[in-house]
Amino acid sequence: MYHKVSLDALDKLQKQKHKLVGGTKFSIGNIQIDVEGKDGLGGLIEEWFGQWALHERLAISNPKKVGNSQSFPDYFVGNNQEGLLEIKSFDVAASANFDIANFESYCDSLSKNPERIDSDYLIFGYKLSGSRLTIEEIWLKKIWEITCPSERWPLKTQTKRNVIYNIRPAAWYSKNARYHIFTSKDEFVEALYATQKEYLGIKESNEEITYYKSLKNNG
Amino acid sequence: MYHKVSLDALDKLQKQKHKLVGGTKFSIGNIQIDVEGKDGLGGLIEEWFGQWALHERLAISNPKKVGNSQSFPDYFVGNNQEGLLEIKSFDVAASANFDIANFESYCDSLSKNPERIDSDYLIFGYKLSGSRLTIEEIWLKKIWEITCPSERWPLKTQTKRNVIYNIRPAAWYSKNARYHIFTSKDEFVEALYATQKEYLGIKESNEEITYYKSLKNNG
Repeated sequence: MYHKVSLDALDKLQKQKHKLVGGTKFSIGNIQIDVEGKDGLGGLIEEWFGQWALHERLAISNPKKVGNSQSFPDYFVGNNQEGLLEIKSFDVAASANFDIANFESYCDSLSKNPERIDSDYLIFGYKLSGSRLTIEEIWLKKIWEITCPSERWPLKTQTKRNVIYNIRPAAWYSKNARYHIFTSKDEFVEALYATQKEYLGIKESNEEITYYKSLKNNG
Repeated sequence: MYHKVSLDALDKLQKQKHKLVGGTKFSIGNIQIDVEGKDGLGGLIEEWFGQWALHERLAISNPKKVGNSQSFPDYFVGNNQEGLLEIKSFDVAASANFDIANFESYCDSLSKNPERIDSDYLIFGYKLSGSRLTIEEIWLKKIWEITCPSERWPLKTQTKRNVIYNIRPAAWYSKNARYHIFTSKDEFVEALYATQKEYLGIKESNEEITYYKSLKNNG
């Protein structure tokens, strides 16, 4: 189910896990600080992974380095770049709270790039003790293995003031999760489009209201 | 107008400007990367500044290090912590796009902490060439010297789908700016509350609509 190269990466990472210790150092002039904040850490781990894969001679390439400005995937895997790999990370002392993808972009892109549904997700669970970063857990997953329903929508999303922003993860690593992950790809896709249908209905009503208000305000 | 210690900091920074070169290094295991992204850089510069001020023996202290969890200021200045100092930064190759403050929190806090209006803003204009960070410009400003009106509101803010998020800066450093900075503290305060009044009017209408919709949906 997962791409062979993704499985290789997972295997190598798990064997090296006890050595996966590091952190961020920031300097200007002669003052250097050991960074204790988590801001931007997801992007750093993603960039680090590309360098690590190169060092391990894995068939993993970065679309941005060959001139593609596309928003996905983070990496291509395989000799013919046939697999898609996304890198995610979160602090294991908290809950998984990363953005899986922008909700509307993901809905749109599935119709144009149906292969996106089969992307592999390599997920790093890190711990930050002061400025010391350690990798505690590594998972390889498919999107339907890290997503679930929610009270508000058939698919759990980040929703603020009735606007859906991002697809958000289930607590797939927890035995006490209130909502369980989907049991199949099909179940995820159904939940995705059921959410979209319900959401677009609501959004159109809101847009009508905004439109009528704007007529009133301008006239 | 500015606190004496803020002026001292500005003076020292400007004298050292040619030496203010640095960057971010991130490592896990034996792979280290020189970071080229800007994510989180504002927070790093803010944290760096505290260490730099300590090294320069300036009377500048970090509220978070003495147990205050308040959202402002970034630093206290003066022997009696009587002055408030905010640290901001932006890439001089682009426009100033930092968040000055959350709009609603700022409106609320001014009534409880009117001294906040007199906070000093120390602003770093940086350049990132690959992973090499240089400080190109440093400014010391008051809030009315870095804010302006906009087409949408009496005070320029970040507004998405009719929701105001943050107070956003004017192009105070540009000769060709379409909107000029305010000419006085009073002019800024007027624009702030005029924006709030107009915004709350609209928001209440939206909340009514949402409320009636929820009645309809639930009934």
